[in-house]
Formats: sequence, structure tokens, C-alpha cells
Amino acid sequence: MTDTPLIGRLVVCGVGLIGGSFALALRAAGAVGHVVGYGRTRAALERAQALGVIDSIADDWQHALAGADMVLLAVPVGQIAQVMADMAPHLAPGTIVTDAGSTKRDVIEAIYEKLDGQLARVVPAHPIAGAEKSGVDAAFATLYQQRNVVVTPLPENDRDAVERVTAAWQACGATVRQMSPQEHDRVFAAVSHLPHLLAYGLVHDLAGRANAEQLFSFAAGGFRDFTRIAGSHPEMWRDICLANRHALTAELDQYLAELAYLRALLIGNDGKALEALFAEAREARNRWADKAFPT
Amino acid sequence: MTDTPLIGRLVVCGVGLIGGSFALALRAAGAVGHVVGYGRTRAALERAQALGVIDSIADDWQHALAGADMVLLAVPVGQIAQVMADMAPHLAPGTIVTDAGSTKRDVIEAIYEKLDGQLARVVPAHPIAGAEKSGVDAAFATLYQQRNVVVTPLPENDRDAVERVTAAWQACGATVRQMSPQEHDRVFAAVSHLPHLLAYGLVHDLAGRANAEQLFSFAAGGFRDFTRIAGSHPEMWRDICLANRHALTAELDQYLAELAYLRALLIGNDGKALEALFAEAREARNRWADKAFPT
Repeated sequence: MTDTPLIGRLVVCGVGLIGGSFALALRAAGAVGHVVGYGRTRAALERAQALGVIDSIADDWQHALAGADMVLLAVPVGQIAQVMADMAPHLAPGTIVTDAGSTKRDVIEAIYEKLDGQLARVVPAHPIAGAEKSGVDAAFATLYQQRNVVVTPLPENDRDAVERVTAAWQACGATVRQMSPQEHDRVFAAVSHLPHLLAYGLVHDLAGRANAEQLFSFAAGGFRDFTRIAGSHPEMWRDICLANRHALTAELDQYLAELAYLRALLIGNDGKALEALFAEAREARNRWADKAFPT
Repeated sequence: MTDTPLIGRLVVCGVGLIGGSFALALRAAGAVGHVVGYGRTRAALERAQALGVIDSIADDWQHALAGADMVLLAVPVGQIAQVMADMAPHLAPGTIVTDAGSTKRDVIEAIYEKLDGQLARVVPAHPIAGAEKSGVDAAFATLYQQRNVVVTPLPENDRDAVERVTAAWQACGATVRQMSPQEHDRVFAAVSHLPHLLAYGLVHDLAGRANAEQLFSFAAGGFRDFTRIAGSHPEMWRDICLANRHALTAELDQYLAELAYLRALLIGNDGKALEALFAEAREARNRWADKAFPT
């Protein structure tokens, strides 16, 4: 803890699991002075204040941004362009803006369109963290510990702004990794967005069958784990899938080619190739899981 | 517990997780007198005896089957035809035979081919249970409690034989459900075999990329759950996928049609339809999971 915290005055727009946990983590690290909450729903902000996640509630952007050192936009990706348009007239040149969106190219398009006067200080980011529950009641100070946060700086960004956003996430306990927005969107299309699409698709396929009830009555633990992400928030995942639809479609096409290969092995009764493929997958999966989730 | 147990002398062929847990569960229920173990690996049988899972070890089928009331074949599906051919000459008319194979049409083909003199007493079955680990050390008496066991009787089966197999699984704490082998194989193609194929395929696809290490380094909890079944045993799943390849290919084709629809929604930027599909899937998945896995 220092005499002058890293961030004197922080504005969190969208005080849910992600925004609320950011505020709590910075508080726990002594890295923030005052936290202002802003958002669509007054009741949620009052709840956040009662929980000690935020210190005060702003009624409009003008009051929210007065004297702000940093703003975190933790709203759904589909709303971020409108939020940027609304805040732009009230943004002082020194205020740093960052976000927590799961896709980056669309957020960056919105930045160039709505915040083009502030490009030096707007640093896109994506914390790789989440939890089963959402909303400010689910927020907790250790959500970001030992998690990755991807920062995708703009060419126009001040080095100082990138460093401050990096330092803020590091103060939350996260590991910050830089990549280009294109690379970010390709990577997450592969390891996150595609699996969500596949799980939603399988459940939707089975749920529409005449014998759906029978099918589900025989589904067991493997099905439960495979489809867990099909329990994710539909609106949020609609936004992510559409925002990243070019990279996601490319990943889906590559996966369709993989399935065509598997289909050929089944039709050809090729046990040797099938077992080799399963063995390679198991080895890669277990090597990764042992490292990423040590027991 | 009765004076005369349900099964006087039980033979378990393949004393691993499945066969060992069957023996332990019947013992715990007082439903078995003496358990004979038989299998390919002497060391595994000695371990099973040391653990108290079996009472004695048979050196050949002749000794194993002498005076046997019931035989459980708990070997990999790919070996079951050979096992049946080996046992057939030593099988007495009164002995009931059942199995624990994950697919049923291929097991039944093997029965008609190898045990055609005994069709009244050979009752195919499939316990829907498993665990992360395999082998007799992983066996436990409560594995089948509140699990489904599917029995797919042959038209030639004695009613008494079906009833005894049913009673044995019920003594293990399972719920026994009857269906035709065709129906069984279609249902499990949909809710078990296809998800395994899809998870293996995704991991194999990503593991073969030039940037595989980068991709895995950003994979998180959703990916872990989705791909957990890609850690399953390659030889076992090769056997299952090939044995059930007709039903599995039909399921894969229906899923490919679902993915083609999802792809069209992405390309068409159709947020409304995408959100509706995700919402339907979430609702179906959560309704099922809340019922199947109450917390």
C-alpha cells in the first residue's frame, strides 16, 4: 500500500461480477482511492454501495467522470458503442478508459468511432475470468488472482496509459499478456466461443427431438460437463458470437473439416486411425489440464 | 439378506471398475455367495482377491463356470465375441450370462454367433455408470446406487433369466430400464458417444495447430469441462464408436445439420434467432441438470 494509490478515482460502468470484482480487488490491494459506480439500474448500484463495492453512485456521465483517473467499462459488448457515445462529451483528456469485453475488434471499432478524440488513453482489455453466477452479489476480491488478462493496445495509446491499465490488473493479482486484437479474437474463437456454440448446438438439437425426454433421462456426468457452458447467458453469448463472427465462422469451418475426417474414419471402420486420434487428444488434453489446473 | 443369496456362485470376467463394483455391491447387499474372478491378467485378479472383491481365481473357463449361477462379462466391447467363443463349450444350460457393454447391437450379434445354444439365458445389459479412474482398485460398492441400468432382452430370453439379471442390478441399488437394443444404441449415440467424439475432435483439431501452445494457454474453465471426456480411454472409445458407428454417424449427421444452421445465423448476423436458440438450449440444459443432479 502506498500513500498515493495507483488510481485516485475509479469509475466502474456496469457494476456486476466483472466490474464489482475489479473494484473489490483494487480496494483489497490498496490500489484505489474512491470508486464511483454508474449504470442503467439504480437498484443494482444501491446494492453495490451497500455491499461496499462502490463508494458513491453517479447519476450521469458528467458527474461520474468529474476528476476520474480511470474508467472501466464492464457492460455487455452489445452496449459498449452506445456507452462510449454517451460518455465522450464528458471525458477529460487525462482520464484513462479501459474495458472488459470478451471480444476486441468490435470494441476497437467502437473506440475509433465514438472516442476518436481520446485514442491515446483508451486501452482495450479482456480479463479471462468468470463464475457461475453474475451480478454484484457474486463479485469477490480474488476473482482475478492467477488469471490471465489480455491487453490489446492501440497504436495510438500512450505508453503510460497502457502501463497504468497493466498495473491495475496486476494489482488485482492477474497476469497481463499483450496481443493484437486480431490474434485475441482468433484465439478466443477457438478455445472459448466455438465450444460455447457447440454445446448450445448439441443441447438445442436434442431438445427438439420427439424423444427428448427419453434422451435426457439417460444423459449422465459426461453430458453434464460437456454441456455446462450451454447454461451460459444467451444475450451475452449472442453478442460475443456476433461480434466475433468472422473468426468464429473460420474456426467452425475448421472444426467441420475435423468432423468430416472423423466421419470418414467411422464409415471406413478405421479403428487404428480413430484410436490414434483419441490418444493424441487425450494426451494433449491431460497435459494441458494438469498444468492449468494442478490438483 | 436371505438365507439363500440371489446368486450362489457368480463369475466376473474382467475384474475392473465395472465388474469389481458389481461384485462389491452384491456382497454388500448379501446377494451373492461366492465370487469367482477370471481374466487375462493374473496380477489384476490377485489384486482383486487381496482387496476382497473376489473369493477365488479361475485358471480357465472350465473351472470358472463349474456350478456358476451367473456370469458377468465386463470386458472391453472389442473383446466380447472372443470371450463368448472361449466360454461357450463350458457353459451349463442353467447358467445365466449377462454383460456390461456400452453398445448392445454388436454384443447381441456376438451372442447369436457364439452362444446360439444358450439364447434363453444370455441377457444383454448396460450399466450407466463410470468414474474417472479404472481398474479394480477404483471399484466400490455404491457405484451403481441411483444409476440407470439398461437391459435389452432377447426375444429368446427366459423370463426368469431377465428377472434374475434385473434383480441383481436392483440389489446393487440401480434402476433397471428395458429397451430394444436398437433404441439403446440410438439413445447413447446421442447423449454419450457423439459428445465424446466432439470433444476428442476439438482437442485434436487445436492440438495440431502451429499455435497450439498459445491456444491452450488461454483455455479456461469452460474448455476444461467441455473437453473432460476427451480424457477418456482411447481403446475403449474406439471400440464403442466402431461398434455403434451406424447410429453414431446418423447422430453426427444430424449435428452437422445443426451446425450448418448455426453457421447460417452467424453469417446472416441473425442475433434474434441466435439468442432464441441459446435461450432454448440453456433452459433445456438447466431443467435437465437440476433434475438429474440436484444439489
